[in-house]
Amino acid sequence: MRNLLITIKYDGTRYHGWQVQNNAVTVQQVFQDAVEKVFGSRLDVKGCSRTDSGVHANMYSLTLKTDMQITCEGIVMALNTKLPKDIAVLSCRDVDDDFHPRYSCVSKEYVYKLYNGAIRDPFCENYALHYRFPVDAEYLNKEAQAFVGTHDFCGFCSSKSDVEDTVRTVKSFSVWRQNDFVYFKVEADGFLYNMVRIMVGTLLFVAQGKIKQGELPDIINSKDRRRAGKTAAPQGLYLNRVNYKAGDSE
Amino acid sequence: MRNLLITIKYDGTRYHGWQVQNNAVTVQQVFQDAVEKVFGSRLDVKGCSRTDSGVHANMYSLTLKTDMQITCEGIVMALNTKLPKDIAVLSCRDVDDDFHPRYSCVSKEYVYKLYNGAIRDPFCENYALHYRFPVDAEYLNKEAQAFVGTHDFCGFCSSKSDVEDTVRTVKSFSVWRQNDFVYFKVEADGFLYNMVRIMVGTLLFVAQGKIKQGELPDIINSKDRRRAGKTAAPQGLYLNRVNYKAGDSE
Repeated sequence: MRNLLITIKYDGTRYHGWQVQNNAVTVQQVFQDAVEKVFGSRLDVKGCSRTDSGVHANMYSLTLKTDMQITCEGIVMALNTKLPKDIAVLSCRDVDDDFHPRYSCVSKEYVYKLYNGAIRDPFCENYALHYRFPVDAEYLNKEAQAFVGTHDFCGFCSSKSDVEDTVRTVKSFSVWRQNDFVYFKVEADGFLYNMVRIMVGTLLFVAQGKIKQGELPDIINSKDRRRAGKTAAPQGLYLNRVNYKAGDSE
Repeated sequence: MRNLLITIKYDGTRYHGWQVQNNAVTVQQVFQDAVEKVFGSRLDVKGCSRTDSGVHANMYSLTLKTDMQITCEGIVMALNTKLPKDIAVLSCRDVDDDFHPRYSCVSKEYVYKLYNGAIRDPFCENYALHYRFPVDAEYLNKEAQAFVGTHDFCGFCSSKSDVEDTVRTVKSFSVWRQNDFVYFKVEADGFLYNMVRIMVGTLLFVAQGKIKQGELPDIINSKDRRRAGKTAAPQGLYLNRVNYKAGDSE
């Protein structure tokens, strides 16, 4: 049985996240429909993570098992023909039988995009958070270094989550400005539910002075969700990269 | 009576162009609805040009006449509150009574965006033409200089047009690459119906070798629509700037 690692890119605007749901269109469901058309049967598609409604992916990985001897290049082309225009297959390759897109993952990287212009940009409504107030990206970048390292991110997790171990290791966090856009990029060994969006919302409190310079480590240590910021809107969030150990790397 | 020059930006994806039509949603109609909500009555809105279905505008100018003594800043804010998210008012100022957004115009600038990656980009489906074949932007830029100057662009005009004078002066034409994107920018004193899209389609014939090096001047002079290229898809086209004479300039 072949185990195929496939990477896709999608505009999450019209989807209720990745995972199959009743009565809602999701990326997984639409992808499985395309797989069924190409492979002739309903194959089990395993994803690297759930994503929320409206969240995008520059790179999302998934696996599926098949006996069909079709080239990887042929699979990419065939799936792209069957998928809607807001989902594209980027690559496909055979991996070991025990490879799992979620559990074999070494780290993930997310990017959050903020549009910081005075007047809304019609082209960014679904692709960035419009935030009108002044943002000093350099200052936020310095303060955001408090997230780096191994911490209990219990306070940066939606209450909807039922994960027991809330300790994660953030490998890097950077904030920078490019014209009217401010970007937040974070890489970690794993993320709790809504963790990136809460970290961004917390940094916006830092930008507004609601959280003082040097106060972030204390807020992280408090493990108190109420001391962190709001959950930033989903449309600014992009799963940017999923990393596997050398050899498994996409 | 005040004559207000207003500039807007819009994502044309869901609109059947600018001009009011029966049984189709247009930017003008939606804009006039917002104006009615803000000014309390249906005012005549004059636009700088028609645009086609799916065509976008980074800057579009229009005028409306009113007696209401509301500040320009207040008008921008109020209209943005009433407009849908895919249309934004950028600026507003008082101009002379005889100023007309179309007839007072000295030149317009369009940008055409081409996505030249091998696999479709889900984020560009409505915002660029996906063109898979190799494009040498530098070569196209050289060949495109044939468009610059005063020519009869009769062959670069849709047959639907009923304009009598088809002579236009192209002030500049440039083609350049930025990563996987190729941009075409053209400024002229005026444009015939579909002129930019036909010029871009013709340059794609140049890219494919269907039109030979140095052949463009001959094709322009032939005034034969059949010798020019196809009309490039609307979603790559952006009205980028509308220029008025000094003093009237936006």
